[in-house]
Amino acid sequence: MFKLSFLPREEKFFGLFEDDAQNVVKAAQALKDMVDTWEDVGEKVAKITELEHQGDTITHQIIAQLNSTFVTPFDREDISRLSQSLDDVVDFIHAAADAMYIYKVKRPSQRAKELADIIVQAAAEVERAMPHLRHRAELKQVFERCVEINRLENMADRVFRSAMAELFDDNANIADVIKWREIYEHMESATDRCEDVANVLEGVALKHA
Amino acid sequence: MFKLSFLPREEKFFGLFEDDAQNVVKAAQALKDMVDTWEDVGEKVAKITELEHQGDTITHQIIAQLNSTFVTPFDREDISRLSQSLDDVVDFIHAAADAMYIYKVKRPSQRAKELADIIVQAAAEVERAMPHLRHRAELKQVFERCVEINRLENMADRVFRSAMAELFDDNANIADVIKWREIYEHMESATDRCEDVANVLEGVALKHA
Amino acid sequence: MFKLSFLPREEKFFGLFEDDAQNVVKAAQALKDMVDTWEDVGEKVAKITELEHQGDTITHQIIAQLNSTFVTPFDREDISRLSQSLDDVVDFIHAAADAMYIYKVKRPSQRAKELADIIVQAAAEVERAMPHLRHRAELKQVFERCVEINRLENMADRVFRSAMAELFDDNANIADVIKWREIYEHMESATDRCEDVANVLEGVALKHA
Repeated sequence: MFKLSFLPREEKFFGLFEDDAQNVVKAAQALKDMVDTWEDVGEKVAKITELEHQGDTITHQIIAQLNSTFVTPFDREDISRLSQSLDDVVDFIHAAADAMYIYKVKRPSQRAKELADIIVQAAAEVERAMPHLRHRAELKQVFERCVEINRLENMADRVFRSAMAELFDDNANIADVIKWREIYEHMESATDRCEDVANVLEGVALKHA
Repeated sequence: MFKLSFLPREEKFFGLFEDDAQNVVKAAQALKDMVDTWEDVGEKVAKITELEHQGDTITHQIIAQLNSTFVTPFDREDISRLSQSLDDVVDFIHAAADAMYIYKVKRPSQRAKELADIIVQAAAEVERAMPHLRHRAELKQVFERCVEINRLENMADRVFRSAMAELFDDNANIADVIKWREIYEHMESATDRCEDVANVLEGVALKHA
Repeated sequence: MFKLSFLPREEKFFGLFEDDAQNVVKAAQALKDMVDTWEDVGEKVAKITELEHQGDTITHQIIAQLNSTFVTPFDREDISRLSQSLDDVVDFIHAAADAMYIYKVKRPSQRAKELADIIVQAAAEVERAMPHLRHRAELKQVFERCVEINRLENMADRVFRSAMAELFDDNANIADVIKWREIYEHMESATDRCEDVANVLEGVALKHA
């Protein structure tokens, strides 16, 4: 089967996106670890903050690369949107972890654990999709990963809606309602942005298939 | 008067956008019907969810069409933004209906009815603007519809601000404040996205006039 | 040192962006004045509303200019994003001022004053960066302003997080928590959009340096 091989300079973009996706996975796992164990919360938030900064560094490298490259492996706008969406995923993971910390919540709800688990799965699909961009013959596998990311986002949406309905039912304490509502929103937004990543990848795959 | 007639392939874009706008109108009417009658709420939310999915299907057709067409009737970026904004209008209509349902609100406030009514009007203007895109000689009428959409968005903004001020004045029950605040925000966002649609249409009309 | 001089038509873009940045500064100063003195609040909100409308007028001029110009001094997309981000800064300044007014808050917290002060500083950096766009030899100074805007945005983020943590600690009154949470979010978003402005400017400077 014919494999289109890209030029060295373009390799750099693929490598950076793979690094960026790996960083998203690390942040997702750190969030899951945090809500599952609920120990050393401050340190775990600090770790996610550190991963957020590493993601920022990769984003800046992608943009710098974009601005110094004439022929890019896919549309400039798609490169820009893809790096922005990956950045957003980590931002929302961080925002969720940070809100749990600064609001001093007692312990994560079952729904929070479910959402963290879905985020890890969606991030893993993003990471798996990335290397397929390198080879035209593998673009079909990009679609498969995107279908899976969409499925996970729908699942997160259902868990989020159940969590929101339960919040008002279960809580006498309205301050807790406000705090958890914000935390759940950040978590759901993280899976939304994974879907944004999937949408860009799908578009790129369509154009080059 | 000279009418520029576009090629068959381009017809497809116009047809899809007209379908999409019609779908927005249906969703807006379903929301208005829901808040006006406040009966069979669960079924009515299900109907709006169904319309949201139909909108998603149209969006995917537009993007697929975009990715397989070399010469588009207007800028690719505008086509992408237009379909995204139409999609967002329905998403916010759905989010408002869904929040009323999952939060089990007693019955819609007068302000909610006013906002639903404005959303229906704004959606109708979007639907009326769309066919004018087909003919260069009719682009002036696009501007007229956009002026009207902007006026409706300003009106929604005023109703929203009154609703928010009243919320805190009228409610001893802070859980209701939180719930209605979210519902109003979704409704106001729906008209905001109609304004986004108008901004794209205005830009397209300016470029081609 | 060689200075690239742009053509008259392009001058117009630079002039409009400088006007727009100046308008952002005026809005930021009006917000700071409002929270510092806390007198004639209604009039001060009206003044910010007026500045928001002036900003809208400038945005429309930029878009109209964009749609009637073939050769632009920098990428069309960057021009569009830059004017949108400047518009957003003023929108969030207005939203913060407006929320304080319609929610009839007693008086601004120390954190609100700190945030208003940071917004003024970030707006001033945006205004200082703008004229450097005119001359290729001065693009390096654009980067310096962007570094400063990023620093201010990080500072606003820290103040925001402290403010949010304190909100729940200090307040027996949950309605006040909801009101201030929204006001702080708008203020923090204003500095976020200054960072968006900086990101566009940085990209433009990189491409043309």
